[in-house]
Amino acid sequence: MNRMVFFISDQTGLTVQRLGEALLAHFPDTGIDRVDIPFIDTEAKARQVVDRIDTATRLGLAPVVLCSIDDAAVRAIIRRSGVLCLDVLEAFIAPLEQAFGVPASHNTDQAQGAPESTEYEERIEAINFTLAHDDGVDGKHLADADIVLIGVSRSGKTPTSLYLSLQFGIRAANFPLTEDDLENQTLPKSLTPHRSKLFGLSIDPIRVHRIREERRPGSRYASLAQCQFEARQALRLYQRLNIPHLDSTHKSIEEISTTIIQQFGLKRRFF
Amino acid sequence: MNRMVFFISDQTGLTVQRLGEALLAHFPDTGIDRVDIPFIDTEAKARQVVDRIDTATRLGLAPVVLCSIDDAAVRAIIRRSGVLCLDVLEAFIAPLEQAFGVPASHNTDQAQGAPESTEYEERIEAINFTLAHDDGVDGKHLADADIVLIGVSRSGKTPTSLYLSLQFGIRAANFPLTEDDLENQTLPKSLTPHRSKLFGLSIDPIRVHRIREERRPGSRYASLAQCQFEARQALRLYQRLNIPHLDSTHKSIEEISTTIIQQFGLKRRFF
Repeated sequence: MNRMVFFISDQTGLTVQRLGEALLAHFPDTGIDRVDIPFIDTEAKARQVVDRIDTATRLGLAPVVLCSIDDAAVRAIIRRSGVLCLDVLEAFIAPLEQAFGVPASHNTDQAQGAPESTEYEERIEAINFTLAHDDGVDGKHLADADIVLIGVSRSGKTPTSLYLSLQFGIRAANFPLTEDDLENQTLPKSLTPHRSKLFGLSIDPIRVHRIREERRPGSRYASLAQCQFEARQALRLYQRLNIPHLDSTHKSIEEISTTIIQQFGLKRRFF
Repeated sequence: MNRMVFFISDQTGLTVQRLGEALLAHFPDTGIDRVDIPFIDTEAKARQVVDRIDTATRLGLAPVVLCSIDDAAVRAIIRRSGVLCLDVLEAFIAPLEQAFGVPASHNTDQAQGAPESTEYEERIEAINFTLAHDDGVDGKHLADADIVLIGVSRSGKTPTSLYLSLQFGIRAANFPLTEDDLENQTLPKSLTPHRSKLFGLSIDPIRVHRIREERRPGSRYASLAQCQFEARQALRLYQRLNIPHLDSTHKSIEEISTTIIQQFGLKRRFF
């Protein structure tokens, strides 16, 4: 029988869920049923949640609550359920108050990235920019790009570009390397004025072969020989032109994005 | 003079950064310079970080470290800097060990969402689906959609769809409501078989007017009268056809996405 873990928040719960996932990854053999409960920002809603916790307590293993609730009265109601209730922010507020020498404010309603903010506008602009500059569609406004990802087809350019724009407000364009580029060891013409913004993705040929086979089985495009040629030539091009690059084969979108931000010293426009 | 806060992680640092943002929002009047340092997974790298902390300590206010470092030896080196060092996972591991009745494993290298996983494949599939079904481009495969967002132009459909696919692996399509649809109070034809998947976004006409004015100043499309007509008719359509809907005017992309997930009871395919 699985144990229920409740992720309860007065806002979206994305922070507590993310931290909770990282914590639960340390208990791989413990069967867990996750329950996400966002937007618990009144005492009435908290009492309804306690009913759900009580039911879970009666039916099985003692549930665990991970929460992020700013209002002490709302949090106290959840606590009254008697189960282990860890507030992921509360634990750190007191030491930070001491370090900063000021009391914490609890008036944080103005969520960052709300639609009224400049951050929001910049985020939307970055998303629109990335969509307009996906897969080399538009090479005209690359002067406005923060970064231009290059790589062979299916090396992870599009997901990484979208992640950079959506999560960080970074204007990420991406450009495919064509067979001609790879053969001649040259950059696509529209990229040459933007050398300093280029970041190359490389990928294991066997992996790219497998991905392409699923899309176009038996094609020359998907053949192992073609994938090996492209992977080898792309890497050679990055090295020859001294373009910073990364092997995306075993990396998540988050890891690729973080590496790029770090290497270019990019400023996040959004958190 | 600002105080430096270091966000240090042995992985991408996205969890500690996110939690750190939520914590620092409680100290709005404390001037902070953030420094993100990801991928600190060896003692040698930790020693280099301590040098940076030492320098910051000599030059100004005592820095603060928020970290997420699994290896106790690596963490101990950071701690030796003598500044306040809060590990955002460590604090919760012991109580969870007690609640679950098992010791925590520290072998969590296999990051969720790594390219080898089914989760990764589903995430990429969802992103591709969303890109192919943005703004009503392709109404043919809506049977495969988890959700179809509808709304007037500039109500937030595209960013929300991308967020749902990228963060949660949810196949989110989106479809614009045209003037004819709004006038006749009918759904676009290709949507009628998918009524149960529809979610409507509504938006304050003054806000949409302002956004559109920036793109096409002085146009009929951007006029307040047109925006008022569209906003009113869209809301009427949702109510008439009993389509669940949300006013996106004051909501972040995260809040809209969380509300949709909650209302539809959608299963996240990715964390």
